[in-house]
Formats: sequence, structure tokens, C-alpha cells
Amino acid sequence: MTKNQGRLFVISAPSGAGKTTLVDKLLKLCPNVVRSVSMTTRLIRKGEIAGQDYIYVSKEKFQSIIKANGFLEYAKVFDNYYGSPKKFIATQLKQQKDVILTIDVQGAMNIKKIMGDKPVFIFILPPKFADLKKRLLKRKTDSAKEIAYRLKAAKQEIKCVKDYDYLIINDDIKIAYQQLLAIFISTKCRIGK
Amino acid sequence: MTKNQGRLFVISAPSGAGKTTLVDKLLKLCPNVVRSVSMTTRLIRKGEIAGQDYIYVSKEKFQSIIKANGFLEYAKVFDNYYGSPKKFIATQLKQQKDVILTIDVQGAMNIKKIMGDKPVFIFILPPKFADLKKRLLKRKTDSAKEIAYRLKAAKQEIKCVKDYDYLIINDDIKIAYQQLLAIFISTKCRIGK
Repeated sequence: MTKNQGRLFVISAPSGAGKTTLVDKLLKLCPNVVRSVSMTTRLIRKGEIAGQDYIYVSKEKFQSIIKANGFLEYAKVFDNYYGSPKKFIATQLKQQKDVILTIDVQGAMNIKKIMGDKPVFIFILPPKFADLKKRLLKRKTDSAKEIAYRLKAAKQEIKCVKDYDYLIINDDIKIAYQQLLAIFISTKCRIGK
Repeated sequence: MTKNQGRLFVISAPSGAGKTTLVDKLLKLCPNVVRSVSMTTRLIRKGEIAGQDYIYVSKEKFQSIIKANGFLEYAKVFDNYYGSPKKFIATQLKQQKDVILTIDVQGAMNIKKIMGDKPVFIFILPPKFADLKKRLLKRKTDSAKEIAYRLKAAKQEIKCVKDYDYLIINDDIKIAYQQLLAIFISTKCRIGK
């Protein structure tokens, strides 16, 4: 029970599980919750907003931040880097904000190594794998190769669900949101975590 | 995560913390949650309903159930027995109902000894001790002697809060209810508990 500081919520989900919709709704309705915007070296995609979806930087810039120990965690996926800037998270937590970090399983497990059981780890899944493929195809932002990669990655990631605190099956978006919100509210009352 | 069975929620609170109001509201709005009605040998009080507030039995009857190992836990407070009938709880859990057991700290700790960390342990507190006394006096159902006893007991009980999973400070009944509900909803998503 830490009253004087916010809490870090680490959220992972296979692409297409509906994570972004759920998190966006929570951010809109809960002024005390902020999102840690990840930094990446990959190119901006259509529809994305710089500084909101990601902070887009060059490889050189990214590597200099690595050297300065400025990431809570970072990873290389395909040819690109993704990382969670340390300073932003620390500042928000001190200001009693809850911080959402949406990262993949690898990143989440790194956070767990560094921060132990202090953050709340949430995994979001679509009801079926078939649905996952459908959702990915529907987005039309990923190539066939990337979809295949993401499906394979998802299968790997699901094996790590046991290391999370909560699992939300996004079968019905209203129920899934209610559950996500309930996790945030109830965590405020948790003793000894 | 047990999908096939309900879960036991053990709720403790000093008398006057607003526990009954909160639990009654939850029971009214959540059809999947039931309350385990305790059995007691004490006399029925004005305003209480037999079978709803307590199951009122004679000392002989109570002792025969003790002998038959029919209580999940029981305790003697003043000259009276209080106990949680085992069969009702087991039946409800099997029917995938969540069961609320409102008992004192002594009873809750007994449940913890028997069932480990499987149940969810919730403690409800009024914002201040002064408020607790005020609420007890307002009820007008307890004698001065009993109020003094309850306040002393409450002080003792608060020392055990650390053994619970959640603490709700009932400062604002709406927020307290939202928190109680959030604990029930989020528990459905808990992994490994």
C-alpha cells in the first residue's frame, strides 16, 4: 500500500487483442492515469501520432539513451528498437499518477526482473486465436509476413500469462473495460502490494 | 484462477464501519454473489430477521453441530456462539456462486488457517475512530458496556489488517461500494489466486 506514489501497470497483449481501445478508454475516463509513451526507431505508420503512439527517434539517438542508462527497459524487435524512457515514468509516479506501460512479454518480464512484484501485470487476450487473426487482418496496417510473425509471437507470449497478475479475455469490450477499470480501482485497496 | 467454482470473500470490519450497508448493496446488485448466514446462540435483536441476519439456534443445537464438524469456523463471544455452517458455503461455491462471509478477525484468521490464501480477505474501516463511536451510538441497539467493548475490540482488530488482501476506508459510501465491487470483479481476472 503506497499512498504517496502512483503505481506502474504493465499491460501486454498480442497485437489485435483490443489493448489500445481498452487503454485509450481508461485514459480518457481516469485523469489520474497516464500512459508511458515508448520510444522507437521504427518509421511512423499511417494514422499514428508522434509523441502519442510513440516517440520516434533515430537509431543513433536511441543508442545514446541506452548508453546514458535512460531506459527502464528496451528491446530490439525485427530491426528496430523499442524502449520505455525511465525519467517520464519516475516523474509521473512521484506525482501520484498511475502509469500504464503497454509492452510485449519480453519487456514485461524485464520490468519484473527490475521492479519485482511492485507493478501490476495485466495480460489481455482475444477470446480465440481465430479472432486474433481476423482482427489483425482487419487493421490492414500489417503485411502478411508481419501478421504471420505476430501470430507466432502471440503463441509464444501466451505461455507467459502465468507470470502476470491478471488476465482479461476481451470477449465483450464493455466487460473487458469494466474488468480493467476494476483492476485499477481495487489495486488502490491492496494491502502489501 | 478457478473457473469452475465460486470464491469465498471473507469480510471483517469493526461494528459501525458500514459493512452491512455495503454488503447488502453488493448482494442486491450482483445476483452471482450470496451471503453465508452465520449461526448464533444469541437472542434475536429488534429489527433482525431470522435466517437473514443470523440463523438463531439453541446452545444444545449449536454444540451438536460442532460435534458433527459442521462449522467451517466458530467462536464464542461473550456467552454466545457464532459459527459459519460448512455445508451451505460448499454448496454455493460448487454452484459457481461467490460467497461472502462477514466475520470478525478471529474467525477470518481461522478461515485463513484452514483455507490458506484461496479466499479473498477484505477489511472495512470507518475513516476515524471517532466516527466509529458515533456510528455505534447512532445505532442505539448496543448498551454502553457493549459499545466500550466493541471499541476496544476494534482497536485490537485493526492490528490484524496486514493479514488481509484489501482495505476499504469507508469515508464515502459511494466510493467504498465502487471499491468493494471492483475487488469482486477484478478477482475474476486474478491469475494464480
